[in-house]
Formats: sequence, structure tokens, C-alpha cells
Amino acid sequence: MNAWWHHLFVTRTTGTGAAVGRETTVALDAMGGDLAPAATCEAAALVSKETTIRLILVGNPERIRAELDKHSHEASRITIVPAMDVIEMSDKPKEALLKKKDASITVAARLVGEGGADALVSAGSTGALVIAAAKEIPLIEGVKRAALAAVYPTRNRGFSNDHFALILDVGATVRCTPDQLLQFAYMGHAYASRIKRVPTPAIALLNMGEEETKGDEVLTSAYRLMKEDPRLNFIGNIEGNDLPKGIADVVVCEGFVGNVVLKMAEGMTEVMKNLGEYAFKQKFLWRIGLALLASGLKQLKTVTDYREYGGAPFLGFSKIVIKAHGKSGPRAIANAIKIAAKAARDGVPEEIRRSIDGFERRSSA
Amino acid sequence: MNAWWHHLFVTRTTGTGAAVGRETTVALDAMGGDLAPAATCEAAALVSKETTIRLILVGNPERIRAELDKHSHEASRITIVPAMDVIEMSDKPKEALLKKKDASITVAARLVGEGGADALVSAGSTGALVIAAAKEIPLIEGVKRAALAAVYPTRNRGFSNDHFALILDVGATVRCTPDQLLQFAYMGHAYASRIKRVPTPAIALLNMGEEETKGDEVLTSAYRLMKEDPRLNFIGNIEGNDLPKGIADVVVCEGFVGNVVLKMAEGMTEVMKNLGEYAFKQKFLWRIGLALLASGLKQLKTVTDYREYGGAPFLGFSKIVIKAHGKSGPRAIANAIKIAAKAARDGVPEEIRRSIDGFERRSSA
Repeated sequence: MNAWWHHLFVTRTTGTGAAVGRETTVALDAMGGDLAPAATCEAAALVSKETTIRLILVGNPERIRAELDKHSHEASRITIVPAMDVIEMSDKPKEALLKKKDASITVAARLVGEGGADALVSAGSTGALVIAAAKEIPLIEGVKRAALAAVYPTRNRGFSNDHFALILDVGATVRCTPDQLLQFAYMGHAYASRIKRVPTPAIALLNMGEEETKGDEVLTSAYRLMKEDPRLNFIGNIEGNDLPKGIADVVVCEGFVGNVVLKMAEGMTEVMKNLGEYAFKQKFLWRIGLALLASGLKQLKTVTDYREYGGAPFLGFSKIVIKAHGKSGPRAIANAIKIAAKAARDGVPEEIRRSIDGFERRSSA
Repeated sequence: MNAWWHHLFVTRTTGTGAAVGRETTVALDAMGGDLAPAATCEAAALVSKETTIRLILVGNPERIRAELDKHSHEASRITIVPAMDVIEMSDKPKEALLKKKDASITVAARLVGEGGADALVSAGSTGALVIAAAKEIPLIEGVKRAALAAVYPTRNRGFSNDHFALILDVGATVRCTPDQLLQFAYMGHAYASRIKRVPTPAIALLNMGEEETKGDEVLTSAYRLMKEDPRLNFIGNIEGNDLPKGIADVVVCEGFVGNVVLKMAEGMTEVMKNLGEYAFKQKFLWRIGLALLASGLKQLKTVTDYREYGGAPFLGFSKIVIKAHGKSGPRAIANAIKIAAKAARDGVPEEIRRSIDGFERRSSA
């Protein structure tokens, strides 16, 4: 057990007596992501200069040090924790984690789980992050299942300046009970109200129709639970065609349908991009249209893309867990670190806990 | 009970002793659809001139006769069956069907269910068609639940000239057992092999990953059942991003996820069309790009749209049921009628029955 960081943590907090007295600490899987460890270390250097966030970089110390040395950084805020294995994007997560005991994501998750940091950020394999976090980081008391959220671009919602919405779960929990869906709503509410800066985010349930009676028993029960909850701004059921419109800040669904929907959006974007290769290659005007459109889409993308929103939260844990995009460059990872620190500082797990408490009190009353 | 058509049917088949000896008969909900009864009656006139299909038009006789008289038609092949109520698109299907006892869709479905025709075609409310068919037309022996299929455009699959794939169920059965999903595969196989002219259509199961172990128990069991079935060309699991690519001829899924996915595709198309209204109104080049692209998309649409594929089959019944698009014009409805007649003539229900028989024999062996 690499538990020596406990000492580090305890030393740092001595004198304050509580976590609030110290700077937020983020553990970064320095080896995770397509551009790691170059991008992760450059991100750490940036964050160390721009903020007072404390960083723990987990990975190969030599390679991390070599990368850090390429950039101006505030060394007093960066700690390196060694981990000599790396889970590659091509690895099968479950098997790889069993074989590579000293994987950076495992060590980083354990460090967070044991209290050595307030948040975990990784741009590595989603599967590995999900498994490592579930194994190493305790769930918030009362939480039944964690939920992997995805942040997706939508058209501008008008009343806020946000161009993205949260959908959860997208694959951590295949099928859900009504209670679990309600808890996903709490998680989405807590995260969106902090990160999207919408005081009462609009929460919707993904269903096959708008009416309260639509779907199976799980969905109708979940609808009732959300509607009756005073903490939630529940706007009712939404359907598949409402998803891209950004009607809701938070869309709640079981992991199976969330996963299919998320991947389908990716697939449609890909097909749109490749349309030119299809049957109409000969249509010159059409190809020009696509080229011109691409520049517009690129602009839309910069408004909404992962570099700005910093990654997808994996919610329900007592600590913040953020999955940054695999292709993230230094700026995107730096933003993910800042958002993770903000979510920890603003008490997202505590807010989820309060919602669950309220529900349990009402239920037993 | 408006059962006088029994006489009509019996008279017509006298002398042959079997249904094969007579022309295929299609019952058309003459009052269903945005452009009914003008479009439905013109379609009937077209079909009566172009084919030997017998047609039963169900609806207001006076209005039907007035519309028919506007077009050259072969009167000997057209019968009118009166029904004085109409389910409007804005009606709530369940309530409307209870109130409007003499609705054209109910009378048409009953006529088909009682043996007066081989197939039912309606461009009216999907909900009303689903309820009326489920109530009036017997399921194929052994079929557990009917499945509403959707036909959606995909990129060209190369080995066939088809630009569309079948996905089922898209909302008739919210949650499914493995057996039901297997039966949906049989239905898709039977329909696609007739209508798409692919002798062994590629069948896929919609899931959260490619591996056999993905998803919950229902999905892993359904995977095994499909894989072990010698009648099916089962290509395994596909994910959301594969849907628009047209990897499979038939995609099998439970009604909940199928419904969400189908509506989401509609929503994304809509958002793409409206992109110009969003944040980038000022980008002149981008708007031109969209305009040029629109003409290309229009061409893609004509290759794949409902006018060609004739409508979405509602499968599992002893008779053919086709839902034509609500906006269908005369040519689209004529194609739906021809496809319905072809599916009936080619024995799609019998083929589904044979698949179920084979499964039951293997299971009990």
C-alpha cells in the first residue's frame, strides 16, 4: 500500500484542524490521455502559476520531472507520487487493472479515496477511471450507485450563457431503480448549480413521451419522486428530440439509454462530417457547402467543447472525480483541474448528501 | 359489428378455396394522414391503374367517392367501407379511440383482423394505429409482443443498394425479455429479407459495447439466443455511434431505447437545419454553407425517404400492418400500399412463424 501520502496530507493540514483551512488538492493521473505525460505536466505547470491549487501528479517520476522542467512552474504546489504502470487506451480496462497493479489511475484513485486529495482528474481510459474510482473512493453515504455524466453541447438556452447540458448516467449503471434515478437528479443538480452557475438547474427525465404516465413503472415512479422533491426544479419528461435542444440543464436517465444516446450523437456528428464521401461526391456545390459549414461548426465547437467545460464528472463519490477528454491538451486539462477544485471547494458531494438526507427525512416522516 | 365485408371476401374467394388464389387485398385508412382523404384516394386510384392489388378504402364514403372521381381509376378493384369518425393527429389516441367508436382506423383494423384484407395501411396517428392493430388483429401464434419498426436512412452499405436500415422496437414494447428481443430479430429478418431484397439481412443488437458480456442479463441472454439461431445472420452488438453508419440491416432493441434514439435522430436533424438561427447568424459564409448543404441533404433524402421505402411496419401480427408517414403524398401512400401487398404476398407473417417454430423445436429438443 502506497500510503505514505497520508503523512504528506496530515502534515499539510496540521494547525487548521479541518480541510477547509488548506488549499484544495487535486490528484492528476499524469500518465492518462493521448498526449500524456506532456499535456498533463504542462497543465500542472500552468495551474501552479495561475492558482493556489495544490497538485499531486501520479505517474513515472522521471518522465514527469522531465516534462515539468520544460515549463515554468511553482514547484512548492506540485507533489509527485510514483506509479510505474500505465493503462493504455487500447487496453481492456478490467483486465489491465488486474494485471497492472501499480497503474497511475489506481494509485491516484487510492490516494484520493484515502484522503490524500480532494479531487481526481484523469484524461485516460474512461473504463479504467470508472473501475478504479468505484474500487478506491467511497460513495457518499446513502448513495446507491455512482453516475457517469456527460457534458454535451446544446443550442443556447437564452436565460443563461451556457451552451451545454449534463446527461447522467451514461454507462456506469446499466439499469436503474426509481431511487437511483432520483439520486442522479440530486447529483446533476449539485454539479450543475456549481459549475453551470444556474442556481436552480432545470432537471428532466428522459422518457418516451411528455405525459407523467409514459414509460414503465421505474420511469413513472422516478417522475413522481422528482416532481415531489422540493430541492429540484423538475421540468418533467423530455423525449429524444428534445435532447439536442438544451431544454434542460440536467437530463436524468439509466446508463443503458444514456450510453446509446451519447454514442449516437458522436456517430451522427461523424456521419455529418463524412457526408461528402457518400453518394454525392460529384456535387461540387454541396462539397463547398460542407466546407463552409465546417468552419461554422468549428466556431460552435469552441463555444461548447471540452476545453471549456473541463470534462465529465463521475458523481456520487465523497470526492470529486473528473474524466477529461482523451484528446485534451494542456489548456483543457488545466480547466479540468480548476473545475475539479471548484467542485470540491464548493462542496458538491456535501450538497448531494444534503439532498439525500432531505429525501430520507421526508420518506421516514 | 360491420362484418358485411365477410360476404365480400367469401364471394371473391369462392372457387379458389384458398387465399393464394385471389389478388392481395389491402385495407387503407382513407381518412388517416395530413393530406387525407385527397392523398389516400389519389394513391388508391394510382394503385388501381398500376397493379392488380385490390383496395378497400375505409372512411367517409361521400368524401372518398368525391376524391376518387377526380382521378382515373379502376373501380372494379376498389371497395369503399364506411366509417364516419376520424382520429385526428392532435387527438390523444387512447381516449379518442374509446370515444370515436366508428373511427376509420378501428374499422380498417377490424376488417383486416377478421380476414377481410391481407394488409392494413394508415398514414394517420401512430398511437391510434398501434392501439387499433393490437386490439383488432391477432398476433402470429407464438409471438409475445408486436414490434413497431422504423426505417431510417444510413450511408450506403456497399454490397446492397439500400440506403436504409430497420430498427425495432421503437416504442410498442417499453421493456423486453430476451425471448421478445429474439422474436424482434425474426420479424426484422423476415421483413428485411423481403423488402430490402437482402437474402440474409445482417442483424445486430443495440448495446453499450461490442463484447458479448456487455449490458445487463436481458441483453447478454438475447445476444446468446440470436447468436445460436441458425436462421439469423447475427453480427453481434452494435453501439449508438454505429447506428447512423448502416452497419446492420436490422437493429434490435427494446422499445424504450429505440424510441429515444429515433426521436433523437429527428431532433438532431432539426437542430442541424436550424443551426443558422443560432449564435452565428452574422456568419455570412456559414449561412451560405448551410444553404448549399441543404440542397445536398435534400438529394440524400430523396434516396432514402419514406416515399421510397413506403412506411414503417408494425410486425408480429398475422396480417401486414404498415404505418405510412403522416405527411405522405399520393406517391408515398401508393408505395406503402405496394409494399404492404408485397409483404403479404411474400408471406412475411409465415416466415416469422417458421422462425418461432424452429426456435421452439430447438428449445424443446
